[in-house]
Amino acid sequence: MTGGPAGPRRRGRPSRTESDAAPAARDRILDAARAEFAERGYDKTSVRGIARAAGVDSALVHHYFGTKDEIFAASVEVSFEPALAMEALVGQGPDGIGERIARYFFSVWENPATRGPLLAVVRSALTHEAAAKVLRGFVLRRLLERIAEDLDVPDPTFRAELAVSHMVGIAVVRYALRVEPLASAPVDDIVALVAPTLQRYLTEQ
Amino acid sequence: MTGGPAGPRRRGRPSRTESDAAPAARDRILDAARAEFAERGYDKTSVRGIARAAGVDSALVHHYFGTKDEIFAASVEVSFEPALAMEALVGQGPDGIGERIARYFFSVWENPATRGPLLAVVRSALTHEAAAKVLRGFVLRRLLERIAEDLDVPDPTFRAELAVSHMVGIAVVRYALRVEPLASAPVDDIVALVAPTLQRYLTEQ
Repeated sequence: MTGGPAGPRRRGRPSRTESDAAPAARDRILDAARAEFAERGYDKTSVRGIARAAGVDSALVHHYFGTKDEIFAASVEVSFEPALAMEALVGQGPDGIGERIARYFFSVWENPATRGPLLAVVRSALTHEAAAKVLRGFVLRRLLERIAEDLDVPDPTFRAELAVSHMVGIAVVRYALRVEPLASAPVDDIVALVAPTLQRYLTEQ
Repeated sequence: MTGGPAGPRRRGRPSRTESDAAPAARDRILDAARAEFAERGYDKTSVRGIARAAGVDSALVHHYFGTKDEIFAASVEVSFEPALAMEALVGQGPDGIGERIARYFFSVWENPATRGPLLAVVRSALTHEAAAKVLRGFVLRRLLERIAEDLDVPDPTFRAELAVSHMVGIAVVRYALRVEPLASAPVDDIVALVAPTLQRYLTEQ
């Protein structure tokens, strides 16, 4: 089997010749990159360090992904894949969209496996313009446009962004700063108050 | 005049002997600290660098403020003073409290003189636990408790924090990440949608 399925297509420089080992090495590099960015932050992560953690040569990292910014973009995209799956929630129509989005958001953030990388992305984006650019231009744009597409309100992208910004604020206060009582509040209590807000932003004329 | 008014009382080790020159030197150190933290971030700011920028000896910085964390706490408090003045807005009763808080928030964040230091605080708190601890334990706690005090709703601190977290999210997306269309949206358009949300969180049973 050559050039077999390499999982979902991801951003980054495509390899020219894919062998059996290639997808595994590529995924290993990406896992290492996510872990390095999450642990050290954008600034202190190096291509050399990612290569070392993945057990490959730096040249292979460059071969698959290009520059450090491009590796970062790829690792952000992987971290946000669950968030982008939220697309499916929007397609179900306006009834209850506020609660579906709120619940989906918490299912992603309450899971420690996805929370760590997401926190790392938020931290990096707030402290490094290169990381902010990736998040802004690539992930958020795609997310907002996808949500906005199905809305029947004036300024749908603005409405989608207001809803997303509310969830971003909750993520920052609850998971990053861990300010009580929000940090320990049951998810149901938060959803009960926040879902009607999202519903209003996304559906009310 | 000895021990004259030194402005509002601030956190930090109080000086044992205040002379005429003391308040001026103290304020100069605090201004230098805010500028250094805003420019370099928490990590790269040093007591020595603050002393140099203020034109004083490091010992004087330690004398007035103590450790680097304590200087940071003092500079956070100064940066948040306008935000804490929001207290006055809460005292006016429940009618229109959502819009008053939203408008006050934007008056602080739209002003470049206050925006820079606030952004620096948010960035530092998201990347350094020591800075997060200061923001969490000191500023947010005080702010939330003050708002909650006047609310006639169940779990008033939780409600206040939900409202504040919405504004934090807008600040992150609009001012730090600068994601369009929210980054360029007129303040009035945002307030029109957000004020009813805050009003509901802060007043609805």
